[in-house]
Amino acid sequence: MAAKVSPLAPKSFPAMPALAGIRMATAEAGIRYKGRTDVLLMLFDPGTTVAGVFTKSRCPSAPVDWCREVLNGGTARALVVNSGNANAFTGKKGRTATKLTAELAAKAVGCREDEIFLASTGVIGEPLDATKFDGVLSTLAGSAAPDGWEKAARAIMTTDTFPKGASVTIDLGGTRVTVSGVAKGAGMIAPDMATMLSFVATDAPVSAPVLQSILNGATSTTFNCVTIDGDTSTSDTLLAFATGAAGGAPLTDEGDPRFSALKTAFDIVLADLAQQVARDGEGATKFVTVHVGGAESDASARRIALSIANSPLVKTAIAGEDANWGRVVMAVGKAGEPADRDRLAIWFGPIRVAVEGERDAGYDEAEVSRYMKNQDIEVRAELGLGSGKARVWTCDLTAEYIAINADYRS
Amino acid sequence: MAAKVSPLAPKSFPAMPALAGIRMATAEAGIRYKGRTDVLLMLFDPGTTVAGVFTKSRCPSAPVDWCREVLNGGTARALVVNSGNANAFTGKKGRTATKLTAELAAKAVGCREDEIFLASTGVIGEPLDATKFDGVLSTLAGSAAPDGWEKAARAIMTTDTFPKGASVTIDLGGTRVTVSGVAKGAGMIAPDMATMLSFVATDAPVSAPVLQSILNGATSTTFNCVTIDGDTSTSDTLLAFATGAAGGAPLTDEGDPRFSALKTAFDIVLADLAQQVARDGEGATKFVTVHVGGAESDASARRIALSIANSPLVKTAIAGEDANWGRVVMAVGKAGEPADRDRLAIWFGPIRVAVEGERDAGYDEAEVSRYMKNQDIEVRAELGLGSGKARVWTCDLTAEYIAINADYRS
Repeated sequence: MAAKVSPLAPKSFPAMPALAGIRMATAEAGIRYKGRTDVLLMLFDPGTTVAGVFTKSRCPSAPVDWCREVLNGGTARALVVNSGNANAFTGKKGRTATKLTAELAAKAVGCREDEIFLASTGVIGEPLDATKFDGVLSTLAGSAAPDGWEKAARAIMTTDTFPKGASVTIDLGGTRVTVSGVAKGAGMIAPDMATMLSFVATDAPVSAPVLQSILNGATSTTFNCVTIDGDTSTSDTLLAFATGAAGGAPLTDEGDPRFSALKTAFDIVLADLAQQVARDGEGATKFVTVHVGGAESDASARRIALSIANSPLVKTAIAGEDANWGRVVMAVGKAGEPADRDRLAIWFGPIRVAVEGERDAGYDEAEVSRYMKNQDIEVRAELGLGSGKARVWTCDLTAEYIAINADYRS
Repeated sequence: MAAKVSPLAPKSFPAMPALAGIRMATAEAGIRYKGRTDVLLMLFDPGTTVAGVFTKSRCPSAPVDWCREVLNGGTARALVVNSGNANAFTGKKGRTATKLTAELAAKAVGCREDEIFLASTGVIGEPLDATKFDGVLSTLAGSAAPDGWEKAARAIMTTDTFPKGASVTIDLGGTRVTVSGVAKGAGMIAPDMATMLSFVATDAPVSAPVLQSILNGATSTTFNCVTIDGDTSTSDTLLAFATGAAGGAPLTDEGDPRFSALKTAFDIVLADLAQQVARDGEGATKFVTVHVGGAESDASARRIALSIANSPLVKTAIAGEDANWGRVVMAVGKAGEPADRDRLAIWFGPIRVAVEGERDAGYDEAEVSRYMKNQDIEVRAELGLGSGKARVWTCDLTAEYIAINADYRS
């Protein structure tokens, strides 16, 4: 599967400090892949709160069902993630597999089953043999260590070509706290959910409801603004854990002045991870940021930005280094949102190529052609109707995407 | 551009009889292409009624604006179509070009400007030099002849690899009438409009309102059920003309028993043309019919069928001859329509591969692999919720689609 590393990958995995209250370990359970890790166990100290955002698919995976149910408890002691099999569309067998995994993990960790969170990613429709976790989870629980974020990021990869991590440390009301996270995803990536798998943790002391509020807000402008192919996964899961091990008074109120500081830290980490997902888009050769301004509302701007970012014709033009703004017009027009052709202006990077409903007479095709050779491309559409704006990340669409996906299952 | 003929093309252009009341001619106006026809003039006898369906794009082309306006008159004397330039997103220049074209055509034909219908297809954003029609239209008006449907179909092609025509003759209340039409389109094809350009004519005597009603009904289950890439064009135009030259009492009432017979004839011709559009999908190697049944409503079934037909992961799997039903589950789940994972069943052709939310234990992977080698593929999803159903046509997504679209403009 994943062979060459994406040309858009970061130069290296970021420095990610150990985070107080968390230990982790990975193993080869042989779920589907050979010769690589495919199981991750994260352990959380007692008192860790949890929040989650999940796929809006009407056909969610069994682990998504499980997490939604146990999230009500608001506390977490362990997270078990496997790659290679999504345990999605596996019927009753899927429910049996999640139950067995939680039982095995609870026994290994010494906690209640409803404090175990699960995520699976990989092929859809194949039953997951959870008996493979027997023994493995006890071993992992025994060997878990405070650092190991990069190993964690690697164990959850499928068609990803590089491990994805991000971390930020801030001062939170006099206490130094860290927010760190990992993510995976390279195809079947579309917004309107928590894209694919991402696990974020902080040592800040935060109640579960406040953590959920932070997560909801940060998701809407980060993971819900990334798209690779417009295909929404059955398994999208974003979980956030707060150990509180950094100390300080619990953050239990959105009116607390620390709320916005912690929200900003989550924004930074999730935006970084979401961009890394787009940078690992299957077959991608260009990282694309679509800005839409002047829309009637932010929601309208986001739908227009996604219409541009999901258009196969726009994405293939960018792959061909063609500043084909006519296709941007098409994508604005088809979004179903208020737009006035004769007020529309379009930029590629700093170059305005169209204005007031026609080609900008002043633009230089040679200059824009040079711009299109960049690896990072910015497309901007200004609608001239209001003050709504949005920013969406995506990648180009290449023949390599087809090659990867025409034989992924077999 | 269009090089090899699509492997899914019909063996030959159908026999299309001359249609009383219509004459046509084509010419090389040198709009963009060299050495091929790029202008079509159709002439209609006085008394010809007209109906139209257009793109729902918020950024429509100038000819679409023109047709919407003159359609109010309800009568047509001529249609002018050019390929090579869509006259879309061309601002005031676009309006000037449509006005000049109509003036030239009205003069050549000897009629009012508001009896001239216009359509343009090709590159977006380049001004159309309508002075190129000067002289050409008079010559065409002089040489127009009753037959010539295949030449008409060829003159309007862009990335199409074969000309598209269909014709049916029926008995309408004792009068023999014909419905004939042509279409073009191979990319930027998505439903929710009259896809790309199609012109249909009949010698039946029908009032404009009844013709519009027939066209609306027939479009919803034909052109609005075809998708190649989910990208809705700025120029989609479907026009229907009724000359009445076959004779008989005018059909002016939907209660007339002839209404459903004529509607059926339009259904047949439009369905044929819509399927030909999917069969010429850019880079297509498989023609795909998606059936959805058991949905809560027909509209819901259609949205789910389109979600499947527009999914790049489903389409690449079919290109790879992989019966990847997990991706069909994904596409059902992301459609945003009522669905119950555990009642869902999926077929490829005659083979049920999934039932009650999991893999069908009885299916034979070798048998379904053999089925996937066919050129025509049927995918069926049964939701088990209600009686809503839909049928959508599409094609697979191949590396050739990328190759065609990464350098179409340049």
